[in-house]
Amino acid sequence: MSDKDKSSPSKPLRASDVSNWDIETDVAIVGFGGAGACAAIEAADAGASVALFELASASGGSTALSSAEIYMGGNGGTPVQKACGYEDDTDNMLSYLRACFGNQADDAKLKHYCENSIKHYEWLTGMGVPFKMSELKERAIMALTDDCLLFTGNEKAYPFYEQAKPVPRGHNLEVEGDNGGPLLMKILTDAVEQRPAINVHYEARALTLIQSDEGEVVGIVVRINQKEQYVRATKGVILCAGGFCMNEDMLRQYAPQFDCGLTPIGNPGDTGSGIRMGMGAGAAVTNMHECFVSLPYYPPSSLTYGILVNDKGQRFINEDCYHGRVGYNALLQQQNSKRIYLITDVDGYGDYEKMSYLGAQVAGTGESIAELEQELELPEGSLQHSLDTYNQNAERGEDPLFHKSEAWLRPIQAPYVALDCTLGRGPFYPFFTLGGLESLPTGEVLNGDKEVIPGLYAAGRTTAGIPRTAAGYASGMSVGDATFFGRMAGKQAALR
Amino acid sequence: MSDKDKSSPSKPLRASDVSNWDIETDVAIVGFGGAGACAAIEAADAGASVALFELASASGGSTALSSAEIYMGGNGGTPVQKACGYEDDTDNMLSYLRACFGNQADDAKLKHYCENSIKHYEWLTGMGVPFKMSELKERAIMALTDDCLLFTGNEKAYPFYEQAKPVPRGHNLEVEGDNGGPLLMKILTDAVEQRPAINVHYEARALTLIQSDEGEVVGIVVRINQKEQYVRATKGVILCAGGFCMNEDMLRQYAPQFDCGLTPIGNPGDTGSGIRMGMGAGAAVTNMHECFVSLPYYPPSSLTYGILVNDKGQRFINEDCYHGRVGYNALLQQQNSKRIYLITDVDGYGDYEKMSYLGAQVAGTGESIAELEQELELPEGSLQHSLDTYNQNAERGEDPLFHKSEAWLRPIQAPYVALDCTLGRGPFYPFFTLGGLESLPTGEVLNGDKEVIPGLYAAGRTTAGIPRTAAGYASGMSVGDATFFGRMAGKQAALR
Repeated sequence: MSDKDKSSPSKPLRASDVSNWDIETDVAIVGFGGAGACAAIEAADAGASVALFELASASGGSTALSSAEIYMGGNGGTPVQKACGYEDDTDNMLSYLRACFGNQADDAKLKHYCENSIKHYEWLTGMGVPFKMSELKERAIMALTDDCLLFTGNEKAYPFYEQAKPVPRGHNLEVEGDNGGPLLMKILTDAVEQRPAINVHYEARALTLIQSDEGEVVGIVVRINQKEQYVRATKGVILCAGGFCMNEDMLRQYAPQFDCGLTPIGNPGDTGSGIRMGMGAGAAVTNMHECFVSLPYYPPSSLTYGILVNDKGQRFINEDCYHGRVGYNALLQQQNSKRIYLITDVDGYGDYEKMSYLGAQVAGTGESIAELEQELELPEGSLQHSLDTYNQNAERGEDPLFHKSEAWLRPIQAPYVALDCTLGRGPFYPFFTLGGLESLPTGEVLNGDKEVIPGLYAAGRTTAGIPRTAAGYASGMSVGDATFFGRMAGKQAALR
Repeated sequence: MSDKDKSSPSKPLRASDVSNWDIETDVAIVGFGGAGACAAIEAADAGASVALFELASASGGSTALSSAEIYMGGNGGTPVQKACGYEDDTDNMLSYLRACFGNQADDAKLKHYCENSIKHYEWLTGMGVPFKMSELKERAIMALTDDCLLFTGNEKAYPFYEQAKPVPRGHNLEVEGDNGGPLLMKILTDAVEQRPAINVHYEARALTLIQSDEGEVVGIVVRINQKEQYVRATKGVILCAGGFCMNEDMLRQYAPQFDCGLTPIGNPGDTGSGIRMGMGAGAAVTNMHECFVSLPYYPPSSLTYGILVNDKGQRFINEDCYHGRVGYNALLQQQNSKRIYLITDVDGYGDYEKMSYLGAQVAGTGESIAELEQELELPEGSLQHSLDTYNQNAERGEDPLFHKSEAWLRPIQAPYVALDCTLGRGPFYPFFTLGGLESLPTGEVLNGDKEVIPGLYAAGRTTAGIPRTAAGYASGMSVGDATFFGRMAGKQAALR
């Protein structure tokens, strides 16, 4: 067998071709981000020896780059929810998540996640993850204070409030600034290092799985120090190697509608190698076409008083939605619209100049709507109709078209400013992938006939997990999913 | 090994576990629809022996159920295009197909298909497929006359006419009524039967592939007469087993946005078993989330003078598009709109009553737009604005919002009729799947690292082929793709 053959993730090595095992362990884990760390801790705590392989020189993965809000609730409420005066119940949380993802949802995972959400909170705090008993009431993408609880999704927006009682479930770590990710990974890394049963190998690139003649995954080939090491994992391999937003080829193949100039957010190891290793062992993939995408037009929250329109001058979404839902819909619009504008007033624009991640340019200004409409080269009367209608209804606290909530309705006053939110003309459209290996809530990976592949587990963005589309995403769902199902996979493998 | 283990398509059988080969052949083909028939003919004509396995009691597959228009052109034009006064060139055809599918396109397949389209025409006519040197000029979903050439896609609609010169490329067989599919399959079946090198096995269910220790596909297990037969195929296996629109589980897993009450069109064998067999052998899948979907609101073509609106009273597409593009956009709208209406006048409705596949109910009528708007419970002024604007512009032969072509622009006159085009409230929304195995233009199937899986080929809806989304579909693309790439796979396997 040539080196080339060995190095393709899609071609598992046959166990009978391994003459010598360099490393022997109960459980091998690929990736030391949030999912891999939690898997390692749980596997070790269940009595297994663990070899944890990380491509980079340090732990962290994409979790350390994130804000690391964690989406938790149900079961009467987390201690923070209770302290802030919110009641939450499991059915309500489940109803909300079902509304978020509809047919795309993995209902078995949603149920397991909701039913055990408080236990996950307790596990995290048991590890030393700090949450303050306080709420951040602003409309924000992330907490820059050390406050904990915030609405991080579409809970209060139409049509979600019709399907579940709005409750905030984003839990921000008790740390100033956007430092939740680094703090979370520091705590989890300390926990890993304190466990003698876990051996961490940094700068270790996983190459391909090792499979028995019967299809059982029995180990993995890793390259450490320019040398291939054959790792025997008697209880199984857990793939926690992230998604594929950094792999242009995979993106084009699996999520072509997102291969359009968006900005990938993740770590350089998010090349989909874990997904390809799983596929090579016979795993099915799910939801590969979907990505998180965002149009981060708030802060400032005052831009929420504005309206978004397409090149027909039509609104297309209630602007009080979560930025991911808005980004998803703005991207959809651009299938049939060459421009997307955010129309605001002078106050909104003033706030925008002071603080924004958006990067949108001013596309036009006008003392009247007609003037702005002309400057934007919109069809005559189109913006006038949309904005007049919006303003008249906003005056009465109503939005019969898109049901924006009353709190964000106020007439937009002249002079008007239009920000160009068209992809490719300035604004920041970050994205990462939401598709991956098909797996059970236990982390067991499935083939195309939904049969378990013995010895193969996965968690985090290497799998298709809780979040399935940006249209229903909430901050905290991905780190929540990765840490929770990482734990499940670690436990399940250890008990095999 | 238990029977259960053997019977999962996702678990290939190991060649070393086969003690006795019941059938030996050069090439084994699964599925006797358009793709399988063409693959068998080409393989036999290249000197190979062929075993062709069909689940049903007769040939046909989904091709026989279709209208079997075939999308061909380029290269100066097919004889029919030329006879009807159309010039077409390969670059123009390629530009059009690229405009249809954008980032989703498989450019290597598009090129191969366009460059060899006239050769495919010649091959088909050489088999005896009859095309009349005539054109059908109506806006139709299919030809009910024996005329050949018609516009079957979005060629004349915005924005496609900006990106390629509009040329009709749908080739209907010379037969009265909607009988192209049965005739095409009768001709291809005769051609198969005339070739002694091809052995056809009906009522033969393919169970799983047989793979060597090195990953080469060397045969297939089929069940014939309640008994498993082990088929050795020295040159390879070609999977032409259709898509998965009849498999509710796969639909929910891979194309959840289309698992919403649409009507599957295809044959009962479209269960995705070919796709799952390929996956089991390590193949990657592509475009699994996409389906063809249609809102067949013409004939009567006069409904094209109408406008489609959502529950905000907004138009959302140029109504002179192909019915698949309209269906796709109507479905997208329903993510954020509870109703879709087609607004027409009394003449249009009269035609609709006489001839339509649509099945939409009258949702409201009105002597004035305001009256209709109220009856439909649309936001006040919303439909009035859309229809007034449309009518004023139509009067001048313009549609500045959606660029509907002048030929289909005329003011809609009172009294007005609204047809309810909402999914689930009557109208026919047919669909079938457009995702499948990743393959080369040669039919060779690829794994997740784009490496060829030796001995494995596929064609037709078991693969992701030319058509990638209903938004860019044209009638004739799927049968065109299946017959063309079926041929390529048959030739490639035979020459191995």
